[in-house]
Amino acid sequence: MARWEPGARERLVVAAVDLFTEEGYDATTVAQIAERAGVTKSTFFRHFSDKREVLVAGQETLSRLFTEGIAEAPDGASPLEAVAAGLQRASSAMGPMNRELGPRLKAAVAASAELQERDALKSVSLAAAMTAALVARGVPDPTAQLAAELGLLAFKRGFSEWSEGDQDTDNELAKYALAALDELRAASASLG
Amino acid sequence: MARWEPGARERLVVAAVDLFTEEGYDATTVAQIAERAGVTKSTFFRHFSDKREVLVAGQETLSRLFTEGIAEAPDGASPLEAVAAGLQRASSAMGPMNRELGPRLKAAVAASAELQERDALKSVSLAAAMTAALVARGVPDPTAQLAAELGLLAFKRGFSEWSEGDQDTDNELAKYALAALDELRAASASLG
Repeated sequence: MARWEPGARERLVVAAVDLFTEEGYDATTVAQIAERAGVTKSTFFRHFSDKREVLVAGQETLSRLFTEGIAEAPDGASPLEAVAAGLQRASSAMGPMNRELGPRLKAAVAASAELQERDALKSVSLAAAMTAALVARGVPDPTAQLAAELGLLAFKRGFSEWSEGDQDTDNELAKYALAALDELRAASASLG
Repeated sequence: MARWEPGARERLVVAAVDLFTEEGYDATTVAQIAERAGVTKSTFFRHFSDKREVLVAGQETLSRLFTEGIAEAPDGASPLEAVAAGLQRASSAMGPMNRELGPRLKAAVAASAELQERDALKSVSLAAAMTAALVARGVPDPTAQLAAELGLLAFKRGFSEWSEGDQDTDNELAKYALAALDELRAASASLG
């Protein structure tokens, strides 16, 4: 029972994740994804360059939202306060579809070396975008890189808890991501 | 003027990096790499499964050395002290060839989306290996993940400085990596 009204792009993502889970990533074709989503192959290619890109559909949006949130944090915000603003902004893009798909997407990535590579590049790219946004605020380089890594870890940890937990609670991702950031900040005091 | 005596595996790595730089990654074939290295294609395939794997040739060794260094750190070592032991162990595997190839390898990766993906997975895998080694020492999970990320950043920052600086100095990578770890530890105090 889907809790959102999916358009063609969303239906393609759901169909792809379903097929990757059922048939495996390598065995799934673009034609199958399009058919399952009830669209033509040319519609698929209007949205995605290949089947692998389906799995990182939100990367550019996420990157932009992290950057905007960090850029628009108040002038006196500390590096981690700016990261928290980025997390809040990025979390706002994640709705019920992302939450429901999360665990299956994770399983599909875990089962495919090719998807693991693409997923790893997504992580590296998001950290680089946050680092650049922090440097643009005047945060010195090693601190910016470290704060960005904390932000990325917090987003991933928060997303896992949010999507793997009870989907009937109304909580938003932001709550989980900010709690994870607090936890990581506390952990940074015990590095020794 | 090479400062090491290369065997077939090393010659293949050098040939691949040269060709990726000259011709581009996509245009380079395994046959060309083998020819340039003065070996047969079947020798190539005894060492690497495809041309992409040449660029992450040291990943398994690095991962093992990080893990061993962390595991063998003294009982009372803090998480970052254990990471420092891992950095020292891993650095010992990096010799003149790695130092000389570093900047060209970096350029080849920067020019190829496919290599960026593989390189990103290498980073994620190394961080995961260090996290697991720290957890095995009893370091709690968020601290372990954070310490591993610091270790990976320190290794990358140290490697860049070592390979992009004056190659005639006799300094070892470990010195650069440990200095970068100290810098990151100091930066963690200013996250806010």
